[in-house]
Amino acid sequence: MNAPIKPLVIPTGTVDTGPIPGSRKVYAAGELHPDLRVPFREIALHPSAKEPPVVVYDPSGPYTDETVRIDIEKGIGRPRDAWVMARGDTETVAEPRLIKPEDNGYATGERLVPEFPSRSPVRRAQPGRIVTQLDYARRGIITPEMEFVAIRENLRREQSAPCIRDGEDFGASLPDFVTPEFVRQEVARGRAVIPANINHGELEPMAIGRNFLVKINANIGNSAVTSSVAEEVEKMVWAIRWGADTVMDLSTGRNIHNIREWLIRNAPTPIGTVPIYQALEKVDGVAEDLTWEVYRDTLIEQCEQGVDYFTVHAGVRLPYIPLTAGRVTGIVSRGGAIMAKWCLAHHKESFLYERFADICEIMAAYDVTFSLGDGLRPGSIADANDAAQFAELETLGELTKVAWAHGVQVMIEGPGHVPMHKIKANMDKQIAVCGEAPFYTLGPLTTDIAPGYDHITSAIGAAMIGWFGTAMLCYVTPKEHLGLPDKKDVKDGVIAYKIAAHAADLAKGHPGARAWDDALSRARFEFRWEDQFNLGLDPETAREFHDETLPKEAMKTAHFCSMCGPKFCSMKISQEVRDYAAARAPNEGLAPNEDAAKGMAEMSEKFKAGGGEIYIPAE
Amino acid sequence: MNAPIKPLVIPTGTVDTGPIPGSRKVYAAGELHPDLRVPFREIALHPSAKEPPVVVYDPSGPYTDETVRIDIEKGIGRPRDAWVMARGDTETVAEPRLIKPEDNGYATGERLVPEFPSRSPVRRAQPGRIVTQLDYARRGIITPEMEFVAIRENLRREQSAPCIRDGEDFGASLPDFVTPEFVRQEVARGRAVIPANINHGELEPMAIGRNFLVKINANIGNSAVTSSVAEEVEKMVWAIRWGADTVMDLSTGRNIHNIREWLIRNAPTPIGTVPIYQALEKVDGVAEDLTWEVYRDTLIEQCEQGVDYFTVHAGVRLPYIPLTAGRVTGIVSRGGAIMAKWCLAHHKESFLYERFADICEIMAAYDVTFSLGDGLRPGSIADANDAAQFAELETLGELTKVAWAHGVQVMIEGPGHVPMHKIKANMDKQIAVCGEAPFYTLGPLTTDIAPGYDHITSAIGAAMIGWFGTAMLCYVTPKEHLGLPDKKDVKDGVIAYKIAAHAADLAKGHPGARAWDDALSRARFEFRWEDQFNLGLDPETAREFHDETLPKEAMKTAHFCSMCGPKFCSMKISQEVRDYAAARAPNEGLAPNEDAAKGMAEMSEKFKAGGGEIYIPAE
Repeated sequence: MNAPIKPLVIPTGTVDTGPIPGSRKVYAAGELHPDLRVPFREIALHPSAKEPPVVVYDPSGPYTDETVRIDIEKGIGRPRDAWVMARGDTETVAEPRLIKPEDNGYATGERLVPEFPSRSPVRRAQPGRIVTQLDYARRGIITPEMEFVAIRENLRREQSAPCIRDGEDFGASLPDFVTPEFVRQEVARGRAVIPANINHGELEPMAIGRNFLVKINANIGNSAVTSSVAEEVEKMVWAIRWGADTVMDLSTGRNIHNIREWLIRNAPTPIGTVPIYQALEKVDGVAEDLTWEVYRDTLIEQCEQGVDYFTVHAGVRLPYIPLTAGRVTGIVSRGGAIMAKWCLAHHKESFLYERFADICEIMAAYDVTFSLGDGLRPGSIADANDAAQFAELETLGELTKVAWAHGVQVMIEGPGHVPMHKIKANMDKQIAVCGEAPFYTLGPLTTDIAPGYDHITSAIGAAMIGWFGTAMLCYVTPKEHLGLPDKKDVKDGVIAYKIAAHAADLAKGHPGARAWDDALSRARFEFRWEDQFNLGLDPETAREFHDETLPKEAMKTAHFCSMCGPKFCSMKISQEVRDYAAARAPNEGLAPNEDAAKGMAEMSEKFKAGGGEIYIPAE
Repeated sequence: MNAPIKPLVIPTGTVDTGPIPGSRKVYAAGELHPDLRVPFREIALHPSAKEPPVVVYDPSGPYTDETVRIDIEKGIGRPRDAWVMARGDTETVAEPRLIKPEDNGYATGERLVPEFPSRSPVRRAQPGRIVTQLDYARRGIITPEMEFVAIRENLRREQSAPCIRDGEDFGASLPDFVTPEFVRQEVARGRAVIPANINHGELEPMAIGRNFLVKINANIGNSAVTSSVAEEVEKMVWAIRWGADTVMDLSTGRNIHNIREWLIRNAPTPIGTVPIYQALEKVDGVAEDLTWEVYRDTLIEQCEQGVDYFTVHAGVRLPYIPLTAGRVTGIVSRGGAIMAKWCLAHHKESFLYERFADICEIMAAYDVTFSLGDGLRPGSIADANDAAQFAELETLGELTKVAWAHGVQVMIEGPGHVPMHKIKANMDKQIAVCGEAPFYTLGPLTTDIAPGYDHITSAIGAAMIGWFGTAMLCYVTPKEHLGLPDKKDVKDGVIAYKIAAHAADLAKGHPGARAWDDALSRARFEFRWEDQFNLGLDPETAREFHDETLPKEAMKTAHFCSMCGPKFCSMKISQEVRDYAAARAPNEGLAPNEDAAKGMAEMSEKFKAGGGEIYIPAE
């Protein structure tokens, strides 16, 4: 007799695979570590462009590589295991923590998400060893992760595009090209982090720091109210497909452990979590019942799974809580509210604050990075930059130094809801009190009046604070304040934040940023419609919008667009202006643009020399 | 025998009428001019809020007034005719310009959009009189238009909300309350305009100026390629429904005259046009064939119809054209490209520049406002703030003074595509060279890499330049660069720009701006879901998004939201924090928040006095 066929938990077909239209995945090898395969997305241009392909940053992992067979039930490959093993400073945990019923909220039977089918050996630091990228960097070691990041940040520009240095960087120190040694230095001084749990073998390392490309995070996660594991994996793959650099799993319902395992085993990007959410599930949602022991157990559980960064709201201290009582929107951070309630109920200082050194020791053994949570962030324009928020930020600065003393990497979370004129003060204060540890902000939203459109209210603030120096922007979807994001919302949030991050890179004067805009603008000017679509952040939507007005295939090579039609096209007339000028200029071996400019200038000179009496004042 | 029933050109049912959910139309009367009916949108709150309704600016006209019967074939009411007549300085034009076949691109038969069914008498200034708001203001006259605007700008705050002065205004002079005399002064010195053609009797006047609320414009219009008159009227009503303060008709195909007539007769907002578009149609699209006579004829045609402002690209001068030859995207303004081609073909200075004084004289006779076009604006990040752009801006400054000398109101158009770090220079230079004439910018787009999402790339720039001092923001829709906007795109563009404009008002510290955000934030904190939806810029979308996750009606009064569920709700916990604090504080007649704060502070003091040894350093 045959055993019944077990249904797949997540049929592989539910995740989106294959390249983004017009793109292909390419890899670069390392020099110090020749086995590295650093991924990029290469966008080919039409031969008439006579331009090399445009290379862009690619966090999408193997899902966009046509040559890789994806099997969600197996997870993606684990190239990083070899790097970790080679360092010889970790050991296999003989008795990894067992999965307990409370890890999944006591879900059973059909309500229990099945365990991920396989489990890799769990590693941790050998006793007395610190295995963090920060500690390696301080010791002068350039890890494979650091070289990976260096190659990744350069976008293969060393082969093609010139550096364009044009921007206002507010004191950042962006190099022309990123070397592995530069990465090491930035990590060593705490100005950048490489979130990379030693148990996350699937990771393609990335850096978060003021002197690198601005990154974005996408939040996913189920809740007590809705959603399933298949949806969460699908949303994660979808988020990184469109450009999310890290993904936070903010699940709060049942099955937290098992869902997270499915995510990490299929995640090429760092995965972040807020461990207090799961700890609270373990005490049945009663904040007062939280204990250090439950929290510690949750940290170890997640460290062993391979979570790369933890949001820890250790800055929500008892004396700050009264500062929030007069607010319009109180405490809006879930973690902040949980800790505030705990502190008040026990009338005690936060155990996260008191046990911070213990937390550091645990995280150092797996290289989990701190994301020090801003539990007192403002939840409305009215509450922005208030005493509670800035008191907590001071404490986060204090805790940064403690984490660094333990060799643990740190970034700092920031607001929230902030009107434009109060944004820069957040960045300036964060730099001043947190020793340049990377800032990681949620938006900020610049107005409260647009529920349903907070990806836009916040993209404005995110672009600005990214320009001022924030290293990673946590996306906000259109569903913010209203509901859980679906796939469309995730994409809308990611694209809005890719826009914000890139606008910030441009304004900071990142030497590799403008090449992308320029390539697209040339395609636009030359009516290379296909190139214009493919170079866009979302080729599918760009093409669809074009086709709504001019659906015929011939229109994609037409030298006009639907706004003006063939007679009125300003780009066409502009080209005629160039041609007209060029035709009157003898070709003296100049490039076409210079040629045209020269011809026009000569015409103009001749014109002025001819009397100039037509320059009649308008009066 | 009965005559066949003539089909309606635009069935009234095709435009959206009725109030926005949760809102009703209210009117305020004038003091100087008691017959004024200044419209507002009043958003009622749930009784539990114990707050007065929130009053917001309302450009939507009678379409959102349940008591008004809309008949597109008759047009909306013309209350302004009486004001114009009462001034006694205009006359009925005995022989108005007749509609000529070329006014509608020689469309005939079924391709000809029928004329609007009725024609009102056409007025112009009596010989030797100037009938502009600028000239009245200079003469010390407070017109009904000025008082209307003053009442409108105050949002009825004098009855309710306190002024919140918190912002960085970069040298603007926002008063606590706007008086009619303040409006007169701002108009007199050219720092604000009230676009108000004497032949636009349907107009509800509005002001554009740095010391007023930031306004937004929506572009509509058919093209040679697609769209119809019914669609255009529908889009106009739709645009103002969601908050467009002015509408530009950028039609370029056939039927330009007749479509415009349908629009103006149904428009409570100012209507702007680019007359060179229609002039070019009259010469069959051949730019070289344009003449002053054709252009002049078009101006008079449109002045008589009631167009409120004209984009005139008089700053595109012959000597500046060579400056564009080396650009990545040349000349992207349609009007700019047309004039550049004309200048080159004839090798002559622009007739718009040379005839500028004549243009002023025509516009002064109807009070049409200049929107001096930036025909050389950058079309890409690469071309931002270049020599061509700024040379033209200098000329626009020169022309501003000429227009003012003729008593004609002026605003100045601005870019375009500008990375964030180059935005402020645009505003500063515009203020410096244009004598504080209102700036009116298109975006600017802060990156070129997101076709399909340029409402977002540009909302970022628009919010910033609005903060810096721009008086009106021309919207960009998701279809920018790709196709003609449909209704959804128009709404998306308008909402994105309402966000940008309001974020700018907040950051400038407009004394009436924050009350709206605060009301919504209180509703959010108190789980007044219906109030949160209704206070949003788009109640329909907010409600729909909420219902996707929690559709049941009971969930709209639930004290939690879908992100956290009932256990994890941070707002709920935050309220518990307040309650907890309040319960421990004796009520000494303080307001609830102060009470709670006091209670909490006492607790904290007591706690610290009790030893304080639990404030253990984390190290």
